[in-house]
Amino acid sequence: MTVDQPSPACALILAGGSGTRFWPLSRQQRPKQLLGLMGKESLLQGTVQRLEPLVQSERVFYSTTTALSELVEADLSVVQIGPAEDFKRRILAEPMGRNTLPAIAWSVDVIARAIQSESEAGADPVIVVLPSDHYVTEPEAFKQALAVAIAEAESNARIVTLGVPPRWAETGYGYLELTTKVDQLGVYAVERFTEKPDEEHATAFVAGGRHLWNAGIFVFRASVFVERMREFQPEILDLVEELGSVLEDASSETSERRGEIYAQMPNVSIDFGLMEHLTDIAAVPLECGWNDLGSWDALVAVLEPDEAGNFARGDTLAVSASNNLLFADEGTIAVVGVDDLVVVRTKDSVLVVKRGNAQSVRDVIAALRDAQREDLL
Amino acid sequence: MTVDQPSPACALILAGGSGTRFWPLSRQQRPKQLLGLMGKESLLQGTVQRLEPLVQSERVFYSTTTALSELVEADLSVVQIGPAEDFKRRILAEPMGRNTLPAIAWSVDVIARAIQSESEAGADPVIVVLPSDHYVTEPEAFKQALAVAIAEAESNARIVTLGVPPRWAETGYGYLELTTKVDQLGVYAVERFTEKPDEEHATAFVAGGRHLWNAGIFVFRASVFVERMREFQPEILDLVEELGSVLEDASSETSERRGEIYAQMPNVSIDFGLMEHLTDIAAVPLECGWNDLGSWDALVAVLEPDEAGNFARGDTLAVSASNNLLFADEGTIAVVGVDDLVVVRTKDSVLVVKRGNAQSVRDVIAALRDAQREDLL
Repeated sequence: MTVDQPSPACALILAGGSGTRFWPLSRQQRPKQLLGLMGKESLLQGTVQRLEPLVQSERVFYSTTTALSELVEADLSVVQIGPAEDFKRRILAEPMGRNTLPAIAWSVDVIARAIQSESEAGADPVIVVLPSDHYVTEPEAFKQALAVAIAEAESNARIVTLGVPPRWAETGYGYLELTTKVDQLGVYAVERFTEKPDEEHATAFVAGGRHLWNAGIFVFRASVFVERMREFQPEILDLVEELGSVLEDASSETSERRGEIYAQMPNVSIDFGLMEHLTDIAAVPLECGWNDLGSWDALVAVLEPDEAGNFARGDTLAVSASNNLLFADEGTIAVVGVDDLVVVRTKDSVLVVKRGNAQSVRDVIAALRDAQREDLL
Repeated sequence: MTVDQPSPACALILAGGSGTRFWPLSRQQRPKQLLGLMGKESLLQGTVQRLEPLVQSERVFYSTTTALSELVEADLSVVQIGPAEDFKRRILAEPMGRNTLPAIAWSVDVIARAIQSESEAGADPVIVVLPSDHYVTEPEAFKQALAVAIAEAESNARIVTLGVPPRWAETGYGYLELTTKVDQLGVYAVERFTEKPDEEHATAFVAGGRHLWNAGIFVFRASVFVERMREFQPEILDLVEELGSVLEDASSETSERRGEIYAQMPNVSIDFGLMEHLTDIAAVPLECGWNDLGSWDALVAVLEPDEAGNFARGDTLAVSASNNLLFADEGTIAVVGVDDLVVVRTKDSVLVVKRGNAQSVRDVIAALRDAQREDLL
């Protein structure tokens, strides 16, 4: 294989998150990406399977934290094909969480070295970076858009994003401003990347028809990412290079030394730290029923209601009750004469909250922290 | 002891009920009287303890069903003092449920025989008949009223009831119409006993000030009860006598024969079958925070609200939520931003229902029966 021939794409799945928005189902030791919110399959497992056949499973890498790496490994053992040793090596555990940009920068370096050691030196793989805890209702449409993005990243030296046509004026997402209106699937030039706009801007973005939600999926050649980092985040790149040289030394102090270096990383997301600075981004519209499952409320959008209009998972019984989300992870939920509630039952807990107000589960988390209820966190 | 001297009073606690109104806490194998609704102590245990020292525990008898007798025995072993063999003999298990009047009639016969075999033949004990699944907030006031009733039953040949000053126009209770208005604790003559009046009558009863709720507590000499039964329900008495003669024969066919006789008993309550016929009833007003705990809603009346106005039992957490009944028998209940709900969590289930609508738990039971969910009944 020569440098000019495209090597098969790699993927980096970001599986280090530790959100609490799906409490009581999600816990410190059971983060969202490991939950079977949509079935038996975890969101992480679904993410891996959604990449096939565009990215072979032996070319999928995982970024996670030391605290979660064993759980991630156990979860992946269900879907990973090939020698166990090999897939475990592809789980890249950060010594500590430093947000997405350091994790991606370090992982891209590890992936590039791994590919170069396997194939010809100088190989410059296309890498698909994506979250592990999102869901799409139409995986085929996802694959189609991703194929377009990979082809674009192979042939042009820019970062390609997958962008979701906005469905409401969400202020928690990033927005990709296209130079033209979206009229079909394909590659669009991005004029500007705006992370978490205020409500006024978000509303204008949605009305204008030229913006897409950033779905957190980035596709690029390793070399293109490194060039952009050299320009906008050189200190992160320097630390990544230091990490690389430490790794080559397999002495017992490696782990400690890595921690010291990693601790110097700035805590910054790829959105604020890199994407907002770039002026040469491409975007491929993604119309595949994408949902980042940001809360119990969001889950309703991807579940089918039953005859009574309830969204039910597990063993549930609704009498004269409608528009409820009933999620029984273990045991039975029975509701009578109540509407518009979220009721979640796990082995040890129950949450009851009004629909539309599920974000306030963070208040429960705060109260549990105050009460030092580590058993429930 | 001669017949003219009063023998210490006995009690008959009716512990055969199998209500489902406290589902999911109450089950076929965990009826309400065995639940710790107000603390660790079961309602049955509380009932026994409330009788002391007026009725000694070795003079307390229990009416229950064959299906429940082992559970009742296990529950009582916590509070029963004295030789285990002795208290087990005082658990009288009906072969099948036939409502309260056959159970009481048969038990009164068994109790009278037991007392007569222990003391002098011809002893005519005062018997206090009472439910096992009620609650009082002021046990001392209960004891005071009961002492008055026992003294009245000892000296006069009539059935004495304990009556609760009505707090609302309940149509599910019986009403005792007094000949005069209640002005103090003491003994009143009852003009008429009306079981389950319609709403119009109930409202008038409450307004008039001459009615008391029947609390299901009856105090009488055994002989007085038998005389009244002879007059109004002679066929039940005949069957009771048949049962008595079978019991004296300890052959292996006893149990089967008992079942055959018991099956002939009419299914009738003491209220409709006896009390409504009587014209010589006495009543003692009972002002002791009496509550029959007829539903989850009723439980609220005897619980203290916390600062946020929630009524909580067990491990619960309420954030921006008030006026909820949160009952965690096992595990944790967390509610956020919801009001006026009943949330009950047990090891295997959760119930969510609006406050004021808790009676509709019967719809859940009906649905579970339809679905043949014996595991949850």
